[in-house]
Amino acid sequence: MNAKFIVIEGLEGAGKTTARDCIVEQLREQGITDIVFTREPGGTPLAEQLRNLIKQGLEGEKITDKAELLMLYAARVQLVETVIKPALARGAWVVGDRHDLSSQAYQGGGRGIDQQLMQTLRDTVLGDFRPHLTLYLDVTPEIGLQRARARGELDRIEQESLNFFMRTRERYQALAACDDSIKTIDASQPLEQVTMSLKTVLQAWLVEQK
Amino acid sequence: MNAKFIVIEGLEGAGKTTARDCIVEQLREQGITDIVFTREPGGTPLAEQLRNLIKQGLEGEKITDKAELLMLYAARVQLVETVIKPALARGAWVVGDRHDLSSQAYQGGGRGIDQQLMQTLRDTVLGDFRPHLTLYLDVTPEIGLQRARARGELDRIEQESLNFFMRTRERYQALAACDDSIKTIDASQPLEQVTMSLKTVLQAWLVEQK
Repeated sequence: MNAKFIVIEGLEGAGKTTARDCIVEQLREQGITDIVFTREPGGTPLAEQLRNLIKQGLEGEKITDKAELLMLYAARVQLVETVIKPALARGAWVVGDRHDLSSQAYQGGGRGIDQQLMQTLRDTVLGDFRPHLTLYLDVTPEIGLQRARARGELDRIEQESLNFFMRTRERYQALAACDDSIKTIDASQPLEQVTMSLKTVLQAWLVEQK
Repeated sequence: MNAKFIVIEGLEGAGKTTARDCIVEQLREQGITDIVFTREPGGTPLAEQLRNLIKQGLEGEKITDKAELLMLYAARVQLVETVIKPALARGAWVVGDRHDLSSQAYQGGGRGIDQQLMQTLRDTVLGDFRPHLTLYLDVTPEIGLQRARARGELDRIEQESLNFFMRTRERYQALAACDDSIKTIDASQPLEQVTMSLKTVLQAWLVEQK
């Protein structure tokens, strides 16, 4: 089986970290041991600096929606070109905590940036590079934010209104509905059941790839 | 006369700072006193942070061409939306040390990023926002770099090869040739003569605007 790029997506508190551990365990069971983890925005020194700017903002300055979007894409292209593509080329699997779908959902859906503009930017920056599989953990904003809050302080993005997250979720769902490479998992269930669903979906996909 | 956005462009060592002082003096002579200065990349706290990342780079990590370009546009859109447009709206003139033409020349010409991609990105991010006048100080890389070197240490961009600056200059010249809002000034002359040429060009343009 050729190396693949698998992405975990979903709102805050959807259970992405638990999902990651579960995916890794399952890949190891298949004898896949060379696995690279990425998180977005971030994953390279430059991208992490951009992540800090995006997440924390700057005192007294509101980051405009377009500046935020461009910083996310700067971080993403740096990660894709210097980490993800080289990893795949040497045969390593890549498991990503978020990728382009997050921008489509949060900036496109949540912030309401024009969808055509979003797609133009993605195609311009990334060409036809896409994850092989995206596992979208679908959770209601209420449940997700409750879990995120239980973890501690919320960052600039996590402090957005409930409506923002509802718009983000709607865009996630809409994009998942028309893309076969995105598998939706009901993540509003208790976490153990989420893990079970995830394993089933991933196992079926891995079998298909053989 | 409505408020205008005037941009100074050119290679390192073209004499942009001297030009700025000269422009301001001339605008003041016309009774224009509310003048906002900008520099790119930079001009807001966020944009200055991005400028530092772009100019200094990060140890051990090469910034990819596309990441650099996207950071430049993030800084630019933040500056345009939060500083330049509000200034023009209240009637202030804006004098900019570099703007979009720099990206077209350095990233498009110098780094060889596809010209179509460059234009798509510009139109996507900035819409139809353009400077009213661009004063392009055309200098040979040899003369420009000699002047820049005399000023002290060179940053990451200024350390590029002579060929890089030759490609950048060629793109500047090509774009200036097909855009009436870009006025070319021979900046390889001694600085006093550059200043004289600049004054003549700016004066003629100001008369046209009345």
